[in-house]
Amino acid sequence: MNDTLDEFKEYREKMNKKILASGNQQIQRFFNLDTRAYEPGALPSKTKELLGLVASVVLRCDDCVTYHVIRCEEEGVTFAEFYEALNVALVVGGSITIPHLRRAVERLEECKQLEKSSPKSRRA
Amino acid sequence: MNDTLDEFKEYREKMNKKILASGNQQIQRFFNLDTRAYEPGALPSKTKELLGLVASVVLRCDDCVTYHVIRCEEEGVTFAEFYEALNVALVVGGSITIPHLRRAVERLEECKQLEKSSPKSRRA
Amino acid sequence: MNDTLDEFKEYREKMNKKILASGNQQIQRFFNLDTRAYEPGALPSKTKELLGLVASVVLRCDDCVTYHVIRCEEEGVTFAEFYEALNVALVVGGSITIPHLRRAVERLEECKQLEKSSPKSRRA
Amino acid sequence: MNDTLDEFKEYREKMNKKILASGNQQIQRFFNLDTRAYEPGALPSKTKELLGLVASVVLRCDDCVTYHVIRCEEEGVTFAEFYEALNVALVVGGSITIPHLRRAVERLEECKQLEKSSPKSRRA
Amino acid sequence: MNDTLDEFKEYREKMNKKILASGNQQIQRFFNLDTRAYEPGALPSKTKELLGLVASVVLRCDDCVTYHVIRCEEEGVTFAEFYEALNVALVVGGSITIPHLRRAVERLEECKQLEKSSPKSRRA
Amino acid sequence: MNDTLDEFKEYREKMNKKILASGNQQIQRFFNLDTRAYEPGALPSKTKELLGLVASVVLRCDDCVTYHVIRCEEEGVTFAEFYEALNVALVVGGSITIPHLRRAVERLEECKQLEKSSPKSRRA
Repeated sequence: MNDTLDEFKEYREKMNKKILASGNQQIQRFFNLDTRAYEPGALPSKTKELLGLVASVVLRCDDCVTYHVIRCEEEGVTFAEFYEALNVALVVGGSITIPHLRRAVERLEECKQLEKSSPKSRRA
Repeated sequence: MNDTLDEFKEYREKMNKKILASGNQQIQRFFNLDTRAYEPGALPSKTKELLGLVASVVLRCDDCVTYHVIRCEEEGVTFAEFYEALNVALVVGGSITIPHLRRAVERLEECKQLEKSSPKSRRA
Repeated sequence: MNDTLDEFKEYREKMNKKILASGNQQIQRFFNLDTRAYEPGALPSKTKELLGLVASVVLRCDDCVTYHVIRCEEEGVTFAEFYEALNVALVVGGSITIPHLRRAVERLEECKQLEKSSPKSRRA
Repeated sequence: MNDTLDEFKEYREKMNKKILASGNQQIQRFFNLDTRAYEPGALPSKTKELLGLVASVVLRCDDCVTYHVIRCEEEGVTFAEFYEALNVALVVGGSITIPHLRRAVERLEECKQLEKSSPKSRRA
Repeated sequence: MNDTLDEFKEYREKMNKKILASGNQQIQRFFNLDTRAYEPGALPSKTKELLGLVASVVLRCDDCVTYHVIRCEEEGVTFAEFYEALNVALVVGGSITIPHLRRAVERLEECKQLEKSSPKSRRA
Repeated sequence: MNDTLDEFKEYREKMNKKILASGNQQIQRFFNLDTRAYEPGALPSKTKELLGLVASVVLRCDDCVTYHVIRCEEEGVTFAEFYEALNVALVVGGSITIPHLRRAVERLEECKQLEKSSPKSRRA
C-alpha cells in the first residue's frame, strides 16, 4: 500500500468535493444514489456493505475495496464473516483477485489498529 | 430468454457431468469449492447467495445470475430484498448491467410461476 | 442474432416497465439518469451516443450496442463515422470485441433496412 | 448453444467480409494482425492457440472460445491438454467462467464428432 | 497520484521505446494502429479523443485515462464537455469508475496548471 | 513501478501467510489449487506459465503479471517467446493492456538484471 487509511480518506474527500463542485448536476445525483444504495431498507446496511465489498473485489478496484472494508468494520462485520465474504469473491472472481485480497486484509488490519488505539474517536 | 428454467438446469447438469467425468481432478476440486462457498457458516446461505447474485450481475454473466436467482428464491429472499440487491449491483456496475437486470427479473418471475403451479415439488 | 430489432425493443420495454413498477425508487432514479446522460448539453447527443456505443463495445454488451446503434442512426451518424468509432473500440478493446462488431454491423444493416422500407414511420 | 459449428462459421465469414468491405483500412489491418498473431514463430501455433483459448475463456467470449477450440483441435491439442488449459483459465478467472467452460466442452465434442464423420473433409 | 504528468510521460516514452526496439514487428504495427485511430477522418480528433477517454474510464485504466485527458486538453475540450463525457462513463460503468474519475480530475487540473505556467512550451 | 522485485515478493509472502493463517479452510484450498494449476502435466510448466502470463495481461493485473514474468523467466522462456506471448495478449486485449505491457517489460529487465548479478543465488 502506498498510502495510509487517513491519506486515502483525505484524497477521496478532497477530490469528491471538486467533482461535486463542477456544476455537473447529473454526477451529483449519481453520487447521491451511490450513498443511498447502502442505507438500511429491506436489507440491513451490514449486508449491503458486504455486497459492495464482494462486488468491489470481483471487479478488482482497490479504492472501492478499501472503502467497503472501512464500512464493513463500522457495521460490525466479524473476522470470520469478512473472510467468508472474501472467499465468495475469490471463488467467483478467481486467482486474479488475490492481489486485491492481500490489500483488503492489510486494510482490515489498519482498521483494527485504529480501533485499538482510539476506539472512541473513530465514530466521533 | 432463449431457454426455460428447466432447459437451463438440464443443460447445466449434463455439461457439468461431462466436465467432472473428464478426469481432471483439479477442476473437480474447484467445482467442489464453488459449491461449498455458499454453505452456511459465519454468514447464512441467504446472505452468501445474495453475494453470489450481485457478483454475477456486476460481472454480467446471465447463467450465473439465473443460478443465484433460483437459489435466492429457495433461501426465501423477498421481492424487496431482491430489488435492493439488484440496485447495489446497478449502482456499482452501471447501466451496462441493465440488460442482465431485465433477464434477472424475468428469471425471478419464472421461479415465482413454478412455485405457484407446484409449491411442493420444487423442494422435493 | 436471435431476435429482430422489433423483438429487441419489445422485450426491452416490457421488462423495463416491470423493473420501474417494482417500487424500488432508486432504480427508477438510475434509469432516469441513464436517459438524461445522452441529452444534448455542452456535447451534442450525436457525440454522446457515439460515446455510449464505444463504451458498450469495449465492455462487450450486445444489447447496449444494439440500443446505441439505433440511437446513432437516429442522430444521423454516417457509415464512415460509425466505422471510425468502431475502430477506436476495436483498438482499445482488442480482438475480443470482434464478435460484438459483427453483431453491431448486422444491427446497423437492420436499421438501414427499416429506414428504407418506411422512412417516415421510424420517427413517428 | 443456439447455433451449430457450421452456422457459427458461416455467420462469422459473412460478417467479417462485410466489415472488411467497409473501406475502413485500419480495421482491415487489425484483422490482419489478429490472424498473424497465431502464426508459428518463436512459439508454435499450438501454444499460441492455447494462449488464445485461455485469454478468451477468462475474458468470457463464447464466439472467441469456439474459434480457438476449433483451431486447437486442428493443431492437435489432446483431450488432457485441453482440460489442463481450461483449468488454468478456471483458476485464474473463477467460477464466473464455468458457463463458458460448459460451452467450450460442447464445442469440443462437436469438433470431435465432425472429425469422426468426415476426417478428411475437415482439412480440405 | 504517485507520479507527476512529466514522470508519467517520461516513463511511457522510455518503455514504449524499449518495446518498439524488441524486434517484434507485430507489436510495432499495433502501436502504429493505436496512434492512427485518433487521427482526424470522418470524425474529428476531438471526438475520437473523447471516445478514447470514455473507453479508458469504463475499462478503468488510469494510465490510459491520463493519456486521453492530456490529448483532450490539447484538442480544446472544455471543462463542461469533459464532465459530460465523464458522466456518460460514470452512468455506463457505475460507481466502480469513481476512483478513476477522481484521478482523471486531478490530471485535468495538472494540465490546466501546466498550461497556465507555460502556455507556449506545451505545444512546442 | 513503485516497488522492487524483492519488495513485491516480500509483501506477497507476508500477506499470503496472514490469509492462510486466518483459519478459512476454503481459501487455503483455493491457494493450493492455484499453485497446482501450473505444475507439469499433459502440458509443461513453461506453457502453463505463458497461459498464466497472457491471462494476467488481458485481465490487466500488474501483480499477477509480475508473478508470471518471474516464473516464465525461471522456466527458460526466451526474449522472443516472451514478446510473442505479449503480442497475443495485446491483440486479444487491445491497447488498454499497453500500460501493463510496459510494466511487464520493466519486470522482465529486473529479472535479467538479478540473473546477471547473482546467477546461482536465484535458484538456490
